[in-house]
Amino acid sequence: MSTHRIYNFNPGPAALPLEVLERVQDEFLNYKGTGMSITEISHRSKEFDEIINDAVLRIKRLLSLGDDFDVLFIQGGASLQFCMVPMNLSIEGRPVDYINTGTWSTKAIKEAKIQGRDVRIIASSEDKNFSYIPKTFTVDPDAAYLHFTSNNTIKGTQWHHFPDAGNVPLVCDMSSDIMSRPFDARPFGLIYAGAQKNLGPAGVAVVIIRRDMLERVPEELPTMLKYTTFSEKNSLFNTPPCFAIYVIDLVLQWLEEKIGGLKRMEEINAQKSKIIYDMIDGSGFYRGTAEPDSRSIMNITFRLQSEELEQKFVSEALKEGLGGLKGHRSVGGCRASLYNAVSIEAVEALCQFMKEFERRYG
Amino acid sequence: MSTHRIYNFNPGPAALPLEVLERVQDEFLNYKGTGMSITEISHRSKEFDEIINDAVLRIKRLLSLGDDFDVLFIQGGASLQFCMVPMNLSIEGRPVDYINTGTWSTKAIKEAKIQGRDVRIIASSEDKNFSYIPKTFTVDPDAAYLHFTSNNTIKGTQWHHFPDAGNVPLVCDMSSDIMSRPFDARPFGLIYAGAQKNLGPAGVAVVIIRRDMLERVPEELPTMLKYTTFSEKNSLFNTPPCFAIYVIDLVLQWLEEKIGGLKRMEEINAQKSKIIYDMIDGSGFYRGTAEPDSRSIMNITFRLQSEELEQKFVSEALKEGLGGLKGHRSVGGCRASLYNAVSIEAVEALCQFMKEFERRYG
Repeated sequence: MSTHRIYNFNPGPAALPLEVLERVQDEFLNYKGTGMSITEISHRSKEFDEIINDAVLRIKRLLSLGDDFDVLFIQGGASLQFCMVPMNLSIEGRPVDYINTGTWSTKAIKEAKIQGRDVRIIASSEDKNFSYIPKTFTVDPDAAYLHFTSNNTIKGTQWHHFPDAGNVPLVCDMSSDIMSRPFDARPFGLIYAGAQKNLGPAGVAVVIIRRDMLERVPEELPTMLKYTTFSEKNSLFNTPPCFAIYVIDLVLQWLEEKIGGLKRMEEINAQKSKIIYDMIDGSGFYRGTAEPDSRSIMNITFRLQSEELEQKFVSEALKEGLGGLKGHRSVGGCRASLYNAVSIEAVEALCQFMKEFERRYG
Repeated sequence: MSTHRIYNFNPGPAALPLEVLERVQDEFLNYKGTGMSITEISHRSKEFDEIINDAVLRIKRLLSLGDDFDVLFIQGGASLQFCMVPMNLSIEGRPVDYINTGTWSTKAIKEAKIQGRDVRIIASSEDKNFSYIPKTFTVDPDAAYLHFTSNNTIKGTQWHHFPDAGNVPLVCDMSSDIMSRPFDARPFGLIYAGAQKNLGPAGVAVVIIRRDMLERVPEELPTMLKYTTFSEKNSLFNTPPCFAIYVIDLVLQWLEEKIGGLKRMEEINAQKSKIIYDMIDGSGFYRGTAEPDSRSIMNITFRLQSEELEQKFVSEALKEGLGGLKGHRSVGGCRASLYNAVSIEAVEALCQFMKEFERRYG
């Protein structure tokens, strides 16, 4: 069975590096001679301490984070962060600014409003079905933070230059492109990312918080909803999702030691997306849905002439061993997610299939 | 390596059935012919739908739950439930009643107070270091619910007959003894349990809610903190912790098909704990810390004559392949956790070791 792996273009949960999966499998009944599975060891053991500390250090190294940043592991995915961000980081009497670039930004805005915050939507690409990244906007210098979504999984758009908000701290949902490229973290007050795209399995969000933000956390919040709880206890206030953190650590190790870090990963990702975008642009058969200067290197969204043909595309691709090409249920169409663990070989196989499909049905 | 598994008496994360671990390992690179790892498949796929639906059905069957109960999977562990319970289930102008039987009850009470609820502690065993389960208390018939902890992992006590609260719905933290025995769920408005003891790996809590409780959920709560969000979407509002739910489903399958259900599991658990308690009671060397009529069949807490001897006990046991026997860091001493997946063979090996240790040092 294990020899019949498919090329996996799932939007998340998504492909993981095969060598990581093989390592998990190899040591699954006996983690490093403990005589226990990784799922059976204590989160207060020295073995798990090594894992979580190694994962934190690797994240800091890969993203070149200064000592003024903490790395936290919090359950509940990015969706829980949508409410934790305004709960923890807003400031009485000051607005919170949001840029709306699609489904996930919209959900983040909704939760800030539920918290009763003075939410200003300073830019939005809703006028053109979120097919682009807004270029002009004015951040209120008094805003507690500016929230944006770095990559829009559903619409296939991505910020190629992060917004300049002056002294207002940036807060970013990086769920679908964290670790895909290097960037300057210094303007960010907080970055969060559900693990299940570029980091590991579903069931944990990585939260990177600049320590000055911790001073904003209100005393009276529930313990499990305060960033300070996770910061003070190295994410071990209660039992963390140990297996997910363990796999994340292995993925980060792969990224540092096998790939060679984020600069190299960015080059590979650029190469991968160029293969597909060039093919789409050279074809009259496939139509990209994102505006060219806003295109995502992680999620390539495209349409065919009819929904019927799109369904055929997805099902015939799967027969050829290319999975996960269906667009999000809310927008339809097709989507190829080219996360870090998707190899160039997989992308070339997809390109080949797309050309053949066009020959047959174009 | 895999042949050198230890007997694992960890308090949680804890032992899992070996055949479950072997199954996970076998299919880890290719789940049911999908060509993907279970960690790579979509939570919206038919494969994952089958898993989550099967897990829900098995929980309902094992606990003989009526159609008026929903089974939810929520991240954040029991610790997040400590605040979600009062947020969702309290009623304006009415008190919430709590019974305090140790560390976890105390934490639940703390979170209800943070929510500003009128918390009444109607009974507590704090006067004797939480070494017993209170027998007399009066539930306010006007209380929105009565909260208690069915098994106290740290102190080694357990409710053998659940409190009678009349028409007041019971709310129970069953993290450390769910699925260890059958019980009548009808008086319960809500039951929650972190998975990492009797159910599966860390990273998810199972929440069983009687549907009439859903009517209490306030509209204005954050989306991810409302039980209705999880109930309406079969726990799939956002990406769930797929791997943890998958392992839970396999553990439930083992419990139904290999063990034969909760009545049989209860007999086995009674037999296991009797082996150790009888040995302790027949010895002048070991001293059980819980009052005999409040003893837990899941967590056996005991002391030796000195802390030095206790340390020697724990480390020599580990050398003999018996792990996880250290008491909770907050109370010291020794503890053997005999969860469902701990075999009689393991318990007999522990008993044998304890006798030999007594012969050597007694």
